[in-house]
Amino acid sequence: MDVLSRIESGLTQTLDAVAQPGAPPGIVAAVRHAVFPGGARVRPRLCLAVYRACGDGAPALAEAAAIAIELLHCASLVHDDMPCFDDAPTRRGQPSVHKAFGEPLAVLAGDALIVLAFDALARAAAEAPARLPALLAAVSRGVGLPGGIVAGQAWECESACSLSQYQRAKTGALFVAATAAGALAGGADPAPWRALGECLGEAYQVADDLRDVCADADEIGKPTGRDGALGRPNAVAQRGVAGAVALLEGLVASAIEAIPPCAGNADLRSLVAAEAQRLRPRRLRRVA
Amino acid sequence: MDVLSRIESGLTQTLDAVAQPGAPPGIVAAVRHAVFPGGARVRPRLCLAVYRACGDGAPALAEAAAIAIELLHCASLVHDDMPCFDDAPTRRGQPSVHKAFGEPLAVLAGDALIVLAFDALARAAAEAPARLPALLAAVSRGVGLPGGIVAGQAWECESACSLSQYQRAKTGALFVAATAAGALAGGADPAPWRALGECLGEAYQVADDLRDVCADADEIGKPTGRDGALGRPNAVAQRGVAGAVALLEGLVASAIEAIPPCAGNADLRSLVAAEAQRLRPRRLRRVA
Repeated sequence: MDVLSRIESGLTQTLDAVAQPGAPPGIVAAVRHAVFPGGARVRPRLCLAVYRACGDGAPALAEAAAIAIELLHCASLVHDDMPCFDDAPTRRGQPSVHKAFGEPLAVLAGDALIVLAFDALARAAAEAPARLPALLAAVSRGVGLPGGIVAGQAWECESACSLSQYQRAKTGALFVAATAAGALAGGADPAPWRALGECLGEAYQVADDLRDVCADADEIGKPTGRDGALGRPNAVAQRGVAGAVALLEGLVASAIEAIPPCAGNADLRSLVAAEAQRLRPRRLRRVA
Repeated sequence: MDVLSRIESGLTQTLDAVAQPGAPPGIVAAVRHAVFPGGARVRPRLCLAVYRACGDGAPALAEAAAIAIELLHCASLVHDDMPCFDDAPTRRGQPSVHKAFGEPLAVLAGDALIVLAFDALARAAAEAPARLPALLAAVSRGVGLPGGIVAGQAWECESACSLSQYQRAKTGALFVAATAAGALAGGADPAPWRALGECLGEAYQVADDLRDVCADADEIGKPTGRDGALGRPNAVAQRGVAGAVALLEGLVASAIEAIPPCAGNADLRSLVAAEAQRLRPRRLRRVA
């Protein structure tokens, strides 16, 4: 089974396990809607690529870490799309969770996904229990306070914030967590992998800013032009399209350079390069 | 230091640890507002009482479990008070989080508290890492799908549900988790403690129903008469005041009977009896 199929299958199994007859059907459907169909699953793929590059002997724990990170990413999208934040009617080409299920179930679906993420980690820990505490702490750091996704979304509620601090929290922290979790699941030191996560996170944010300005809604499955409408910081607004593209190129090059020497180096390089290409809006994409 | 002071101090330390200069000040304040001043902290006291009754040698892990359970309880209150659920303007005698900080920070404060709860558990695990996976799973079960608090709140979004299923999820599950976590932190089997958690959870729900009907808002620090206004199931509506009081008495007696034989049996009995007395609205309280 290829990596993406393993991720989809892991997500399906994790959600199936809580879709028991005793569970309220609405929230079960809302959680499923939040996770499927997915985006590119880039964070869990990154996590598993780092695990393969440096890991040993805890494949189920690594897969649970990847699943947990994707569930936390989906949770953040559900809450971020709500009327009190981005008020986005669509996501991944379908109605956002609050549009399809109402605001109460959107709040609860996000909550349930956060709990499910940590639960998935705990349930896979039998393989290497000694690795669980650091792994959990790394994942928490990517989503919670003081500098994870929740902090990133909370910066949007402040009258002033530094663009880099906002982006590091809102996007970068979960990429850093994905690399750290891959290393820790494999029993390795996460420190050498931090720079890769940081560069990719920043690249992904710039790519997202470019797509918000240069793509159309059909292409990315959600409304465009939202940053301008909501007064959000955006790299294209600051640097223009050409400047943002140059920044993206530089970040991708830095990400590739940041990959530590390891057996999986070539795999990781091609993952990063393919992502970089995929993230450009079609009209800015290089002809292969 | 008495138990309640240890709980307050543990909560303070946990929140202080994420209130770093780099964190957005609004969310830090919102999270603190959600946790202080507290209610009776009955769930963490129950957790620690069960730990003392059957535990050995992991006091920091037990305290982290108690803190985690209280943080998760606070998270559920923040989201439950929001306009799309109970729309409650006050909680514990002060403005609810969304009233004080706005809806976006209320959503995020709940999210941050959930993450912080799991993080607190992971950080305390060094003392007894082998106990962490089961402890985490027990805590998850109390809050997540298929039958934890999130499921309880989600039953409110269904057109039909069984009263006992709703109450078991919305209130009972976290009491069961509190007893299970106390036992697991102490290296004991949680199974004999389940009935105590179930009876107490149900008693607490009936007491809450009584207070919603019979107390005044000043006494309980939140609006009364909400169940009727929101069409929620309520034991007083079903049985009348006298019937609900009789049910409460019976549940308290069952809770006391359900305490397994153990060294801490007397402490637990007095904790349950004191809670039962405290939970009655003043005008229904027995003269001592």
